[in-house]
Amino acid sequence: MRLKSKDLLGLESLTKEEIELILHTAVPFKNLFIRSVKKVPPLRGKTVVLLFYEPSTRTRASFELAAKRLSADTLNITVATSSVVKGESLIDTAKTLEAMKVDFVVIRHNMAGAPELLAKTMKASVINAGDGGHEHPTQGLLDMFTIKEKFGKIAGLKVAIVGDIMHSRVARSNIWGLKKMGAKVWVVGPSTLMPRHIERMGVSVCYNLKKIAGEIDVVNILRIQKERTQESLFPSLHEYYKIFGVTNDTLSGAHKNLLVMHPGPMNRGIEISSRVADSSRSVITEQVTNGIAVRMAVLYLLGGKTSEIDY
Amino acid sequence: MRLKSKDLLGLESLTKEEIELILHTAVPFKNLFIRSVKKVPPLRGKTVVLLFYEPSTRTRASFELAAKRLSADTLNITVATSSVVKGESLIDTAKTLEAMKVDFVVIRHNMAGAPELLAKTMKASVINAGDGGHEHPTQGLLDMFTIKEKFGKIAGLKVAIVGDIMHSRVARSNIWGLKKMGAKVWVVGPSTLMPRHIERMGVSVCYNLKKIAGEIDVVNILRIQKERTQESLFPSLHEYYKIFGVTNDTLSGAHKNLLVMHPGPMNRGIEISSRVADSSRSVITEQVTNGIAVRMAVLYLLGGKTSEIDY
Amino acid sequence: MRLKSKDLLGLESLTKEEIELILHTAVPFKNLFIRSVKKVPPLRGKTVVLLFYEPSTRTRASFELAAKRLSADTLNITVATSSVVKGESLIDTAKTLEAMKVDFVVIRHNMAGAPELLAKTMKASVINAGDGGHEHPTQGLLDMFTIKEKFGKIAGLKVAIVGDIMHSRVARSNIWGLKKMGAKVWVVGPSTLMPRHIERMGVSVCYNLKKIAGEIDVVNILRIQKERTQESLFPSLHEYYKIFGVTNDTLSGAHKNLLVMHPGPMNRGIEISSRVADSSRSVITEQVTNGIAVRMAVLYLLGGKTSEIDY
Repeated sequence: MRLKSKDLLGLESLTKEEIELILHTAVPFKNLFIRSVKKVPPLRGKTVVLLFYEPSTRTRASFELAAKRLSADTLNITVATSSVVKGESLIDTAKTLEAMKVDFVVIRHNMAGAPELLAKTMKASVINAGDGGHEHPTQGLLDMFTIKEKFGKIAGLKVAIVGDIMHSRVARSNIWGLKKMGAKVWVVGPSTLMPRHIERMGVSVCYNLKKIAGEIDVVNILRIQKERTQESLFPSLHEYYKIFGVTNDTLSGAHKNLLVMHPGPMNRGIEISSRVADSSRSVITEQVTNGIAVRMAVLYLLGGKTSEIDY
Repeated sequence: MRLKSKDLLGLESLTKEEIELILHTAVPFKNLFIRSVKKVPPLRGKTVVLLFYEPSTRTRASFELAAKRLSADTLNITVATSSVVKGESLIDTAKTLEAMKVDFVVIRHNMAGAPELLAKTMKASVINAGDGGHEHPTQGLLDMFTIKEKFGKIAGLKVAIVGDIMHSRVARSNIWGLKKMGAKVWVVGPSTLMPRHIERMGVSVCYNLKKIAGEIDVVNILRIQKERTQESLFPSLHEYYKIFGVTNDTLSGAHKNLLVMHPGPMNRGIEISSRVADSSRSVITEQVTNGIAVRMAVLYLLGGKTSEIDY
Repeated sequence: MRLKSKDLLGLESLTKEEIELILHTAVPFKNLFIRSVKKVPPLRGKTVVLLFYEPSTRTRASFELAAKRLSADTLNITVATSSVVKGESLIDTAKTLEAMKVDFVVIRHNMAGAPELLAKTMKASVINAGDGGHEHPTQGLLDMFTIKEKFGKIAGLKVAIVGDIMHSRVARSNIWGLKKMGAKVWVVGPSTLMPRHIERMGVSVCYNLKKIAGEIDVVNILRIQKERTQESLFPSLHEYYKIFGVTNDTLSGAHKNLLVMHPGPMNRGIEISSRVADSSRSVITEQVTNGIAVRMAVLYLLGGKTSEIDY
């Protein structure tokens, strides 16, 4: 089985079977990491461009390591958004990279839809590494990989996503993915950060995590962008922590198997307490490891390889 | 046959035979790009330093890909010109890189002559990736490769170079190269951007492209540096476009085989109209592909390899 | 024989035997540099992260080349210190890199102790590439390698370290290393830049290099950080040069075999005259070459390889 598209633009457009294929393909890549030589040859002689219009050490590093562990060559292009105004259009950039005969473009952009525009212009595979408030599909996939690894399944699980739902591409990719896989999803956060009509995505809305803590299997805590306080979307970071920060108190009624997740980097003492972050419930560092395995799987599958990994 | 110098500093110092050698050597490298594994081993274990004192995503990426497709290791060193004032001298930088036993230094610098200074100080091969208003030899070579690929020859062709001739290293490298290869060259642009005595380089001067459009085989359109408007070298970008922008109207009298070239990145609506840029006459993206092939040929030949490519 | 620790945090914690092992292991790596293919396979499939919280072209380049010549994959992470305030804690960064299954982290940080904190949090090998005013162990090792290569020994030699002793991690690593290897060490500099109780490190203090120039075998000249003048630690760069700059006059009474060293990049005309820097006594560029060999040895040994290099 193969992925239908040459690109990975979002989880909205993937089928359940495609998501399962990616999660399944990631397993042997994760196993590779316990070997001494963590490198395999399938993408030798291929070029992966990391085209970042927003700074991101963590996601860029994860994709770069994923590419290198598949023996691809990588090319970093970091573009300050401020200078893009002066620079060439995204379509001209796409044509240039296409002419350079690169095989993959991993793009992060502050504008929703930028990866799709790129994908339409290029024969190369485009992977969305986060576009505005739209999607961040590999984050959704690695979150699902982590959940499946711990519970052995996703269908039927109850997942709460907590934080700034309105601006979060991580929330959106998780919702699309989890719903397809049969999970029940709550979104939790201040009403000023809750998009209108979010229920139409098939989720339940809740304004107090504590109320549903006893029911859920997974809590996925979003990073608060501190600059939102200046936009007056919530009164202060201190207030946010008091009401929406996930603490031992918030989780006092939770099952003992509750999984605590966070896409990182964490603001300790803002959206999550250190006790929760470092508790045995937390799989936050595990998510980082899984992120590389899942990104390897995506590169591998988009590279036209089938799911049979035979090295 | 080999190149005589260990360095590529400009096309002024190359013979016609050397230019032909490079263009000839680039052909199999371009053919490599249609293969699945676009990588060959000749520079394995060699180090290519990309030493950029001016920002340049495009040229840096092209050289970096060229080096990696020859299996060389690359090292990016980006130096903000402002901090160079505080830093060590170029000669000390050259000595340091020499002591690091690197094999190639690709340098871009805002000062004409910087690559030559480096080359005199080092045993490593130095490649000029653009020095002030002096030369940008690999751009000249890739432009000639593109012309030769389309017309099967360069000798006898008529080429117009349009734009800010005065500040353009691209213009200078093209003029040196094209004249050696037997082409006839016009330079076209506003008189304030036309260097005095440019005729001494063996070119004809023209202030109106439309007048000669019917005679020429190639028009190579230079990028306008927008900051020149502040220097009052032309009244406004809008004025520039009206008079010197290359449009369907400008080219209304041209042959149907006229080739439209641009080194990129383009300012659409300033030096070139989108219709011309995206027309079937345009080989602008082809130039990008050829750039990597030509740079591979240069690295390959300077690396002491002869023109027989036997992999 | 192996190194006892998984990390290289400083020379204070190494034994004489461990220092000798590193210097001994570096020899064949240096010999590699005269070969055409300067690359060997021991770290294939390993990842070396270059985590730089302070800008450093030279040290970063040296480590990156060392890693690549051992066939490791490298990952550059440059963090502007200003943004670290907003970013995640060093411990969270360590956990993230650990989860990414990297094998080595080379860290430069403006805070003394940062590498140790990282090392305690990670199973990966941490190499200190300079931490505040604390240590810069690979610089100390490459300086000793250079001395040993020239004199055939270190024990019994007399070494003067000249400059801003107070703020210098290079001075501290040299002192720890040289004392262990049996050298006699002087520290020379203005009294305002001399740490109190420095004698307790087993060194002699001197305020005038000329007085001891006839006795010493090596003078190691530290780089003056020009920003110190603003802190009024010395009156002006001109004054500094007049009194502490190392010139032919300063060295007029020296042996003819005196070795002149500098960690680079040099401020010519401030801490060293050009005549001295470029004299036959100077081994400053040799230090750069040795730096890569020593860093390869450190990576090789920390990677669990024994000193038998068998390729």
